[in-house]
Amino acid sequence: MRLELQEVFDQYADVLDNDRLEEWPSLFTEDCLYEIIPKENEDAGLPAPVIHCDNARMLRDRVISLREANIYEKPVYRHFTSGLQWKAIDADTVEASSSYMVLNTGQDGATEIYQAGRYQDRLVRTDAGWRFQQRRVIYDTLRVHTLLAVPI
Amino acid sequence: MRLELQEVFDQYADVLDNDRLEEWPSLFTEDCLYEIIPKENEDAGLPAPVIHCDNARMLRDRVISLREANIYEKPVYRHFTSGLQWKAIDADTVEASSSYMVLNTGQDGATEIYQAGRYQDRLVRTDAGWRFQQRRVIYDTLRVHTLLAVPI
Amino acid sequence: MRLELQEVFDQYADVLDNDRLEEWPSLFTEDCLYEIIPKENEDAGLPAPVIHCDNARMLRDRVISLREANIYEKPVYRHFTSGLQWKAIDADTVEASSSYMVLNTGQDGATEIYQAGRYQDRLVRTDAGWRFQQRRVIYDTLRVHTLLAVPI
Repeated sequence: MRLELQEVFDQYADVLDNDRLEEWPSLFTEDCLYEIIPKENEDAGLPAPVIHCDNARMLRDRVISLREANIYEKPVYRHFTSGLQWKAIDADTVEASSSYMVLNTGQDGATEIYQAGRYQDRLVRTDAGWRFQQRRVIYDTLRVHTLLAVPI
Repeated sequence: MRLELQEVFDQYADVLDNDRLEEWPSLFTEDCLYEIIPKENEDAGLPAPVIHCDNARMLRDRVISLREANIYEKPVYRHFTSGLQWKAIDADTVEASSSYMVLNTGQDGATEIYQAGRYQDRLVRTDAGWRFQQRRVIYDTLRVHTLLAVPI
Repeated sequence: MRLELQEVFDQYADVLDNDRLEEWPSLFTEDCLYEIIPKENEDAGLPAPVIHCDNARMLRDRVISLREANIYEKPVYRHFTSGLQWKAIDADTVEASSSYMVLNTGQDGATEIYQAGRYQDRLVRTDAGWRFQQRRVIYDTLRVHTLLAVPI
């Protein structure tokens, strides 16, 4: 199970880090939930995600917007994860959590920590392999100016 | 073996990074050694750990102190490891080494590299799974002001 | 396959991060290609590697030079990888890519992100295990002053 989850996590990092955004929505189920939430809101039980997509079409629309908008600047991201924990809900459903870190190299060539936080995931087994039915991104880092720009 | 070691490393990161410090001592044996040592001391063969605990009770006491002391500030940590190497000593004992990095997000919301270094571990198989009989934390980073605050 | 590749990646990080440079060339085949290339050159299809070694003897010479040159300063590196993807070319040959990050702790004890980027590898199965027949290091980070100093 660990290896199967690691495989989909690595695919996720691969498409985001090598500028193949168009493949990102295909790692989710059609009825998915994807949201990005500040840790302090999550801890306080206050529902105020900065991004909230509740189906894969919204993810695809997001990619199109990003491609149209980001014509001047194209930062490079590198995703790293650790501390994977998981629990089987049934034979085809798993809940998982892990820590993440994203590095960002901007136009000036400097590499910085862009964001750290935690993923809370629910994955289901499909014919194409494990897919995210839910990925909640709960970020620690508050100094995030360009948060809306890219998927985490 | 790799997967079994990875599992306990991930548990270790999980409890420290998600504020479940109370579970941290349970990943050690009762007769454990846990110490934190500057790399230059280790390289010079000088025994001067900044933290030295030689049983699990000391780890539990440490957690209690941290809970009592750290009422004003609660930084968030994220642990990452790499370069795992191991050697079986016997059927139920393994020696392992790996590199680590810890990120820290403080009250102001900025995420920084808190510390990097190397773990030198000895693990034994117990009924509850692999447990640390020894974890020596040998840190590279010398600009660590709050080193005494938290387990690494 | 993932576990076998992870093993050689971990060995690679281990020798570089724990100052055992002399073992680094042994992770390559004798007829290897090792090169370091800025991402913008790679993306533009312009062949201008800042380092280009096309056999293992050049790697060994490089290690000797480093040992002779770097007598005053000895930074500590920590390598981390993620997003591993691979494709079997035949039973004994694999092409792989992954993201990397290297941390650097200098003489002053501060730990910084030294470099991030992507590995593009070709590995072959040998009697000694999987070895790099090709490792292309394509770096994102442009503010790299001491790039020539150490292997990535």
